[in-house]
Amino acid sequence: MSTPTSGIRLGKNQYGKAENRVVRIVRDTPRHEIHDFNVSTSLRGDFAAAHTVGDQSAVLPTDTQKNTAFALAKEHATGAVEEYAIAVGTRLLEATPAAEEARIAVEQYAWERIGDHDHAFVRSGRGVRTTVVEMGPDGVEVVSGIKDLVILKSTGSEFKGFLRDEFTTLEEADDRILATSLVATWRYASTAGAGSVDWEATYASVVETVLATFADHYSKALQQTLFAMGSAVLEKHAEIAEISFAAPNKHHFLYDLDRFGIENDGEVFYAADRPYGLIEATVERG
Amino acid sequence: MSTPTSGIRLGKNQYGKAENRVVRIVRDTPRHEIHDFNVSTSLRGDFAAAHTVGDQSAVLPTDTQKNTAFALAKEHATGAVEEYAIAVGTRLLEATPAAEEARIAVEQYAWERIGDHDHAFVRSGRGVRTTVVEMGPDGVEVVSGIKDLVILKSTGSEFKGFLRDEFTTLEEADDRILATSLVATWRYASTAGAGSVDWEATYASVVETVLATFADHYSKALQQTLFAMGSAVLEKHAEIAEISFAAPNKHHFLYDLDRFGIENDGEVFYAADRPYGLIEATVERG
Amino acid sequence: MSTPTSGIRLGKNQYGKAENRVVRIVRDTPRHEIHDFNVSTSLRGDFAAAHTVGDQSAVLPTDTQKNTAFALAKEHATGAVEEYAIAVGTRLLEATPAAEEARIAVEQYAWERIGDHDHAFVRSGRGVRTTVVEMGPDGVEVVSGIKDLVILKSTGSEFKGFLRDEFTTLEEADDRILATSLVATWRYASTAGAGSVDWEATYASVVETVLATFADHYSKALQQTLFAMGSAVLEKHAEIAEISFAAPNKHHFLYDLDRFGIENDGEVFYAADRPYGLIEATVERG
Amino acid sequence: MSTPTSGIRLGKNQYGKAENRVVRIVRDTPRHEIHDFNVSTSLRGDFAAAHTVGDQSAVLPTDTQKNTAFALAKEHATGAVEEYAIAVGTRLLEATPAAEEARIAVEQYAWERIGDHDHAFVRSGRGVRTTVVEMGPDGVEVVSGIKDLVILKSTGSEFKGFLRDEFTTLEEADDRILATSLVATWRYASTAGAGSVDWEATYASVVETVLATFADHYSKALQQTLFAMGSAVLEKHAEIAEISFAAPNKHHFLYDLDRFGIENDGEVFYAADRPYGLIEATVERG
Repeated sequence: MSTPTSGIRLGKNQYGKAENRVVRIVRDTPRHEIHDFNVSTSLRGDFAAAHTVGDQSAVLPTDTQKNTAFALAKEHATGAVEEYAIAVGTRLLEATPAAEEARIAVEQYAWERIGDHDHAFVRSGRGVRTTVVEMGPDGVEVVSGIKDLVILKSTGSEFKGFLRDEFTTLEEADDRILATSLVATWRYASTAGAGSVDWEATYASVVETVLATFADHYSKALQQTLFAMGSAVLEKHAEIAEISFAAPNKHHFLYDLDRFGIENDGEVFYAADRPYGLIEATVERG
Repeated sequence: MSTPTSGIRLGKNQYGKAENRVVRIVRDTPRHEIHDFNVSTSLRGDFAAAHTVGDQSAVLPTDTQKNTAFALAKEHATGAVEEYAIAVGTRLLEATPAAEEARIAVEQYAWERIGDHDHAFVRSGRGVRTTVVEMGPDGVEVVSGIKDLVILKSTGSEFKGFLRDEFTTLEEADDRILATSLVATWRYASTAGAGSVDWEATYASVVETVLATFADHYSKALQQTLFAMGSAVLEKHAEIAEISFAAPNKHHFLYDLDRFGIENDGEVFYAADRPYGLIEATVERG
Repeated sequence: MSTPTSGIRLGKNQYGKAENRVVRIVRDTPRHEIHDFNVSTSLRGDFAAAHTVGDQSAVLPTDTQKNTAFALAKEHATGAVEEYAIAVGTRLLEATPAAEEARIAVEQYAWERIGDHDHAFVRSGRGVRTTVVEMGPDGVEVVSGIKDLVILKSTGSEFKGFLRDEFTTLEEADDRILATSLVATWRYASTAGAGSVDWEATYASVVETVLATFADHYSKALQQTLFAMGSAVLEKHAEIAEISFAAPNKHHFLYDLDRFGIENDGEVFYAADRPYGLIEATVERG
Repeated sequence: MSTPTSGIRLGKNQYGKAENRVVRIVRDTPRHEIHDFNVSTSLRGDFAAAHTVGDQSAVLPTDTQKNTAFALAKEHATGAVEEYAIAVGTRLLEATPAAEEARIAVEQYAWERIGDHDHAFVRSGRGVRTTVVEMGPDGVEVVSGIKDLVILKSTGSEFKGFLRDEFTTLEEADDRILATSLVATWRYASTAGAGSVDWEATYASVVETVLATFADHYSKALQQTLFAMGSAVLEKHAEIAEISFAAPNKHHFLYDLDRFGIENDGEVFYAADRPYGLIEATVERG
């Protein structure tokens, strides 16, 4: 039975349309630009009747949310992804009286010009740009980021002096490969005032800072590297309140070639899939 | 620099070994059993020094966590997955003084016997069993579930009377296909007292209840179906405090055959990949 | 330049529409049936002008091929997948004078009833049924099969007496886990005469024979198991000319627990992802 | 039964180790280089006894093939991927008397330096380099290529004048997006003589030629674009005998915004997943 039973009630809920693949070509001049997005929308609010008695009168269909994402792309998907996400969220809240909060998550795929061609492009695989905008009675929160940023350093990394117990067999490493497929997400301090953040410049700068810190930092552990990257970003960007990382430690194990009379001085590795270390950390102000 | 800067500090963090593929064969008799697990461990606690100065002395390596998952499988991976997860978490907390909380997440893949063979099996694809155990100063929280449970009903579902705005083009549906790849997770009321829950029987009963409700329920929307499934589970299982669902609406669009003079009375559909509606809801007591 | 240069010419080519997700609900009675297909079509023939000078006049668009797959589903996607594939191929050849051959590949996903419900289903994950039909001047060739059939035996498998060289470190195994995600494809002897094959019964019998042989066969190597399975199928099915297998050896490595003073007598394994042995063999008549 | 039955025999077969993830760091100077490979080996020959009676005496284990791929990486995985593949194949044939042919397939992942750092890298996602080397009594055949090269042109593409039948509903397109995830593979004319091909330079040139042709070519169909790309490559590279393409037509459908009173003049598109056109063609000499 779908009617509410005594003592049983609806808890947290949200609904929306996930993974709308919106592509906006800016072609006002012969030199085109691509904005290539994967947009997911969610609404939260008073949708209890849809759950308990099947009453849809407060529910803006997910199909309409899809149409909204495409319709607003004409005007709003021509600049920073954050601005487009805010526009979609604003519209969905206006159109849905029962909605109290909107969550708009967007992935953006990067394209580079072939040569310097006006309208021919090749997709870059150096990470996917992300943003999650949450809008509600308390204002607008923007958490932007990058994912699938695969980085590796072939020296300048150790792992020593760790805690040992009876199940510890790992040997200390003085010089190892450090590699990860980085996910970084940073929360902007306050965007309710709007207009204050240069989304494009900040994105570029954060990614550059993360990469440069990774490269130059001597790593005693992936944890330390993440903290260093986060600190460097916060030092440089007052508009960022905190930055979080999820970093799978993509293990590269030295392959045992001694058995074959071949010296392997950090030269031949087996790149493992699973299991992998998973290090997650937030660096914040306080 | 990785040393803490004034006003910059470590926030939330955790680390562990993800996706240990542990397979335990119970072969005490000729009639073998398989327990096939994908185990991810995480520890949280006072690991600040690892981040800020690269001091690993409090850090039990993720490699040791892997060894622990395998070592404990001998004794503990022979019954309910929840018991194994609790054993691994308990051990990791004991071995790591700096750890305050452990999170052990396990997926379990189901195998069926070929015929009724003693030691030959075929993997079942009817969903993956899951559990997440979180242990800390406040006790043990167990959230078990199932994912990748793909279900469909070919009638008995409508979607009508929804909110419309200028971007709404969806037509009302009196009779549609309802399909989803269900994720369900239920939180046990209190397991600190232990021994009180029959994990195996509860799992089987929850899945059966969810399926039976899906089948028998006339659906005015996926939201209503989720609430009905959740209510049915809570009514039957006092040991469950709440149940949550994430249900992608796997759209099946009627293919327009009128153009070809062919009647399509709910018979030929196009199963779309993206975008998809995504409905999430929790049903709780209160 | 796209015009043909002296000495440069078009070689083999084909084109079509891949991965049409066609779902056919048979609802002539209250007890519905699902036929859930992923259809890929290809045409081969004299399409040189499309390549060399961009002349499409002989090219039936891939969009039309999609429409054809859906349109013919009404009448033809209600029985064996092979019959549907043949119907689509026949139609495409008729509609495309320049086409000499058609290749129709279909995957079929299995659904089971929830309980014994008339219109509610849960998707089975025990393998995906496949067929590839090739039609041309030489008649019709049907190669049917199954893929993603994950099977495991926990004993009754060894690997010994193999060739050794200086890079060989593998130890002989008296008793190991044998597991694979099987792909089997069998070619029917002659279907030009049609009507002669009971596709449904043969599919069920071949899968059952493969599973039973896997279960009962004592394996000295995966190669031997494949040959045994193939031989059993050919012995039973005169209508099958040959059967091929691709079998990734999903390695389960005994985890070294001796280091921890724990005996591991074939009980705790690590299931590896990559690399994997890959064994491919055809069993034929002759 | 695994013994051969009258009239049933072993047909084509091969075996090997797939997806060895070999990473070779060249660190002879402080400026490191990464060679990041995914290596799959296969052997073909007289391995009938392994299949029919389980006799492994002629079978070099796949585990040994793995060791070989890693062992030879020390000396051979420091230059062109083709040279490494040939070295592995040569060795496996030498070590396995029963083998008549070896097939070595390698994927190579590209890394770029972070800034111009000596030992810190970020993985490039602009395509994956591939090679397949087949060695046997007839010599060595090398087929190199690139895959996952995602390219798009936002104008300069039409599709008109195609064949129509009763299921054709597609409208002619004067100006559309053309996008594909290209797979290109080119066969070298003769490498038995060896030393004659500059693998690195040829790879770079072919990819550049393909991209430049795609960009500059006005496309009347994807078929025509493929032929133009292939012709350009063959004109420039006498050492290449033929080049083949598999190109999924990643459809970008103009989103219907007229319904909302919004003009959509080639600006807002929906990027579809499935189905997709799949165009395959070889350009050869003759």
